[in-house]
Amino acid sequence: MMKLTVEKYRFMILFIILVIISQSALASRNSMRHREPCKRLQLYYHDILFRGTDAANATSAKVANQTALGDFKFGMLVVFDDPITADNHLLSPPVARAQGFYFYNKKDDYNAWFAYTLVFNSTQHKGTISIMGADLMAEESRDFSVVGGTGDFFMTRGIVTIQTDTFEGAYYFRLKMDIKLFECY
Amino acid sequence: MMKLTVEKYRFMILFIILVIISQSALASRNSMRHREPCKRLQLYYHDILFRGTDAANATSAKVANQTALGDFKFGMLVVFDDPITADNHLLSPPVARAQGFYFYNKKDDYNAWFAYTLVFNSTQHKGTISIMGADLMAEESRDFSVVGGTGDFFMTRGIVTIQTDTFEGAYYFRLKMDIKLFECY
Amino acid sequence: MMKLTVEKYRFMILFIILVIISQSALASRNSMRHREPCKRLQLYYHDILFRGTDAANATSAKVANQTALGDFKFGMLVVFDDPITADNHLLSPPVARAQGFYFYNKKDDYNAWFAYTLVFNSTQHKGTISIMGADLMAEESRDFSVVGGTGDFFMTRGIVTIQTDTFEGAYYFRLKMDIKLFECY
Repeated sequence: MMKLTVEKYRFMILFIILVIISQSALASRNSMRHREPCKRLQLYYHDILFRGTDAANATSAKVANQTALGDFKFGMLVVFDDPITADNHLLSPPVARAQGFYFYNKKDDYNAWFAYTLVFNSTQHKGTISIMGADLMAEESRDFSVVGGTGDFFMTRGIVTIQTDTFEGAYYFRLKMDIKLFECY
Repeated sequence: MMKLTVEKYRFMILFIILVIISQSALASRNSMRHREPCKRLQLYYHDILFRGTDAANATSAKVANQTALGDFKFGMLVVFDDPITADNHLLSPPVARAQGFYFYNKKDDYNAWFAYTLVFNSTQHKGTISIMGADLMAEESRDFSVVGGTGDFFMTRGIVTIQTDTFEGAYYFRLKMDIKLFECY
Repeated sequence: MMKLTVEKYRFMILFIILVIISQSALASRNSMRHREPCKRLQLYYHDILFRGTDAANATSAKVANQTALGDFKFGMLVVFDDPITADNHLLSPPVARAQGFYFYNKKDDYNAWFAYTLVFNSTQHKGTISIMGADLMAEESRDFSVVGGTGDFFMTRGIVTIQTDTFEGAYYFRLKMDIKLFECY
């Protein structure tokens, strides 16, 4: 009688352990929102818009003019190959390039939409991270989506939290990018 | 003898349960196609193209002209900040904005390509869903890909099934979007 | 005494099996980088840029002119509906169309950025694969990201390795695309 009880306990404990393991495996995807990123990069993006004569410094250029829809450059489309630095100094050695485009898209305020690929080619990182999203410039902090990656960032996904770090007139602005990757392979 | 057999049964049953649990955990990703979406939104997208004088109503504007390649506006590129409503009435209160662009891209028929971000900012939903895909206008129903999300739609993925609900000449069209999200965190 | 030892062994072996099963389920995502693709397609992309008079042959057209930033067509934006073939012959029957756009984006060398959707509509494949990334033309081989799919390619993700197969002046180029899908549902 005693022995049977011990057996039963063993089974019960074993079974409980198994259920816990199985559940945690199933739940691991759902708890992602509350997990720490598997990789995190805090970087700065610098955009120097071409004025027509400063080709040596400029890193982006307007390819479609703003329209007459509102007073906030609606439709102005800019292609860029912008330097990415580890700190907020424009002249720091770039750790990556951001290749892509943005355009303004609100008629009653400044607002933009971005799609770009971060290209890393250093001893530290080789590969790309592709990003897209709405740049809700009226909000202090806004999120883009990391939709893919290659090389060191193979198949990655995540969130980029953007803050405008500074801007100087219409020709220079700097974004702080907090890149949080939640899928790393 | 009797006791041993009972023991064996216990082991076998336990083992079978375990195998089933493990298999179902592994298989859960593969059966996704046949699963119900974890979130579903049926919404309407309204595009009112700027004619040059109707800035108060217009929600999109042409930023690159159509080319001479064919007779179906090949290359015409439109940037938009379009209202999204829960029903098919243009004047219903928007539940989101669609920020992005489309262009026409077929020389022998109307066909387009879209990339945009749905921006939700209501008590019901806060966050974004980023979408891209070919708008095969010759087909009654066609699919875009949901490639990422933020906020309430953190890291989401899925499919958007699009139908042209109506269009009025060259300046207004309405799409029915059936957004099926299969990854929710 | 002997019997108890046998029991213990049974438990230990069972437990070890369970741990292995659970671990492999958890690890399956992390080993993806070293796995074989679940689907692989090797295809050729042909781009014939419209010269203004060859509408019958052209499959793409310039919608924004290059800027004066550098001497490598910075900002030139091209919309395309390009044929995709199984071998490297332009005139082979297309197995898909690539619908999307690219633009040049470097001031000191040729370099481009692409976003497009492969549209399959044959007995073999029906559905779409959406792709984006930086085309680092200076490198013999470079990777784009597969960010989504529909139909037969429902929710897929992966990598497209691109090589320039040939180019003829400014009006024709051919890319070899090695599409490796690592998520298939």
